Amino acid sequence: MTQKKTPIAILGSTGSIGVQALDLIAQLPDRFEVIALAAGSKVPLLIEQVRRFRPRFAAVAREEGFAELRRACEALGVESAGGGESLLRAASHPLAERVLCAIVGGAGLRPTLAAIQGGKVVALANKETLVMAGELMLAEAARSNALLLPVDSEHSALHQCLRGERREEVHRLILTASGGPFRLASREQMEAAGPEEALRHPTWEMGPKISIDSATLMNKGLEIIEAHWLFGIEAARIEVLLHPQSLVHSLVEMRDGSVICQMGTTDMRGPILYALTYPDRWSSPLPRLDLAAAPPLEFQRPDVQRFPCLALATAALRAGGTATVALNAANEVAVAAFLGGRVRFFDIPRTIEKVLEEHVPVPADALETILRADESSRRRAEQILSKGVAA
Amino acid sequence: MTQKKTPIAILGSTGSIGVQALDLIAQLPDRFEVIALAAGSKVPLLIEQVRRFRPRFAAVAREEGFAELRRACEALGVESAGGGESLLRAASHPLAERVLCAIVGGAGLRPTLAAIQGGKVVALANKETLVMAGELMLAEAARSNALLLPVDSEHSALHQCLRGERREEVHRLILTASGGPFRLASREQMEAAGPEEALRHPTWEMGPKISIDSATLMNKGLEIIEAHWLFGIEAARIEVLLHPQSLVHSLVEMRDGSVICQMGTTDMRGPILYALTYPDRWSSPLPRLDLAAAPPLEFQRPDVQRFPCLALATAALRAGGTATVALNAANEVAVAAFLGGRVRFFDIPRTIEKVLEEHVPVPADALETILRADESSRRRAEQILSKGVAA
Repeated sequence: MTQKKTPIAILGSTGSIGVQALDLIAQLPDRFEVIALAAGSKVPLLIEQVRRFRPRFAAVAREEGFAELRRACEALGVESAGGGESLLRAASHPLAERVLCAIVGGAGLRPTLAAIQGGKVVALANKETLVMAGELMLAEAARSNALLLPVDSEHSALHQCLRGERREEVHRLILTASGGPFRLASREQMEAAGPEEALRHPTWEMGPKISIDSATLMNKGLEIIEAHWLFGIEAARIEVLLHPQSLVHSLVEMRDGSVICQMGTTDMRGPILYALTYPDRWSSPLPRLDLAAAPPLEFQRPDVQRFPCLALATAALRAGGTATVALNAANEVAVAAFLGGRVRFFDIPRTIEKVLEEHVPVPADALETILRADESSRRRAEQILSKGVAA
Repeated sequence: MTQKKTPIAILGSTGSIGVQALDLIAQLPDRFEVIALAAGSKVPLLIEQVRRFRPRFAAVAREEGFAELRRACEALGVESAGGGESLLRAASHPLAERVLCAIVGGAGLRPTLAAIQGGKVVALANKETLVMAGELMLAEAARSNALLLPVDSEHSALHQCLRGERREEVHRLILTASGGPFRLASREQMEAAGPEEALRHPTWEMGPKISIDSATLMNKGLEIIEAHWLFGIEAARIEVLLHPQSLVHSLVEMRDGSVICQMGTTDMRGPILYALTYPDRWSSPLPRLDLAAAPPLEFQRPDVQRFPCLALATAALRAGGTATVALNAANEVAVAAFLGGRVRFFDIPRTIEKVLEEHVPVPADALETILRADESSRRRAEQILSKGVAA
């Protein structure tokens, strides 16, 4: 079978998602052509990837790493660049049809926007993109005819459930949550918990920030916001169910009462592969789900008293405009303070609540507005935390 | 909202599926226009339905009931007819666009064929149609442009999972089975069981024949055959998983490892509504699935030693032609003998096995061939049973 290889750019190639994507691509060598690789700062790994995948272009955001990258790339005849602008070149490389946007945090915002403005098929693994700039990204995608595909396991599941379904026939989206380390904890235990306890995630392996988001369920809050933008469903019709086994990745209830769900192993390469191949599905080299060997699947409603972040996220989404920017900024600052041992677990939602109360949302239709709201909300969260949240 | 009502004919309107369909139609009065009602013999109920739904045409298969039906219909200005041919008129009524084929057993074969030949959208609730005559029905549907929609909860689930998916990207279909009353029984307990034990179905309410099929898992065997014809997937890629909670109605594993499944309450009106409204999904008056209130969902591989009917069905499907006709005929005869207390539980698969061993399959491409194979297999099964299966 001969077919055209998919020309692809990977932004954040040295991060967790980027590395897993390249692992898949290495296992499917006839299927992809790596056009561009871009990383933040891990130059030695980036160089290794350039040697292996021989892209047309390699970029590193951190200027200091560029000299080393350039030397390696020149020896291989690969074009290279350094600095923040170099990420935008990788994102909009004319030969790349598909772009995996996997740069973590606000740093991923501009490159993702560049990929969208370039009319690419954009595999979105950067959470902040839609939480902070969903309105803007969608408007730009409509303009450029870019296609947005989620890489999150939950949104990938929703995307798969919605294949062949009509938006107006959807009754609600149900995001599943493992429930994190505190699913069965008392409020007192949670109030007393330090970072070590909060970092013990039961099913998925993840970095510290997202692990704390999983303990507060803010990760689901952010995912509600993402789902809203990806699928055009209002906040009131997006719910969360705890599902400790993490095998049902999300569900869609149609208006006739039928519930469609997607299941899979807890392996991010599944959703990555989906976003890299949609609308096709390729034979996968990954281990398969064996339901007969799986534990019984349980579903519970989350306790709103112990997980106030869910309601905060929904409130921010309803408030609209820059409110979700403020939510995300306050959360990041509070989580960092918690990880640093400076504040207690429930200070995270308390900080976010205070920041949101004071925040006056404005339309989030320009990157500058969004970044300004992000910065001012971070400052405000720091002030609140340094004064003591209860003050 | 004004929209055209769906003109519908219901064959088997006084049976379980027919009654539930009319219950739904009564709850959605703006959506359907009942064009024709046809029943086997329950004339008083049929007359009640005619009074309520005022069809253009009513038919009863049993000649003896026709006089009573005609009197009632004349008073209402409804055309009526009696005898086997009258069912064909209902099935191919020129005003009916959609036909629910819910006549139980071999009697449903000709009317279903008439609906298919009439190019209708055919909601199939007659199991025998595809088990006995899948090849023929598909050929006729291709000729007339009829659309076949399953009413079985499992096949409805598969149909829903496959919306927006490509056939060649399907890895396997997984039919769920409650496991019936003998899921946890020992082989010895099953060998000793009489009809009372075998009739105790844990989750679905059904008639005696299908309850025994559920105890032997032959119902899943027949469903494997139906799934093969409905979805064009070979026997080797159709599997069965026991799922005692009966909430996941079936699953599709795609070749990329992603598993799509459909869930719902154990209420046949869900699949009926789907088949009556596809490709639309309508807001449903039915109770909704609440996963947070549901028991944990379990999945197990069926024990091939205790449930030999599964392998027999797959073997018949692989043998092709009239082999599935022989399987179905032998099963019906053996189940009747078991229900009559004449033989023991495992005599059912033993009888089927013997009939299949002797059966020389011929292409099942004409109704006469199919009915002949059915009759000879029934005769042979009776002979085997009357001599004693072990003989």
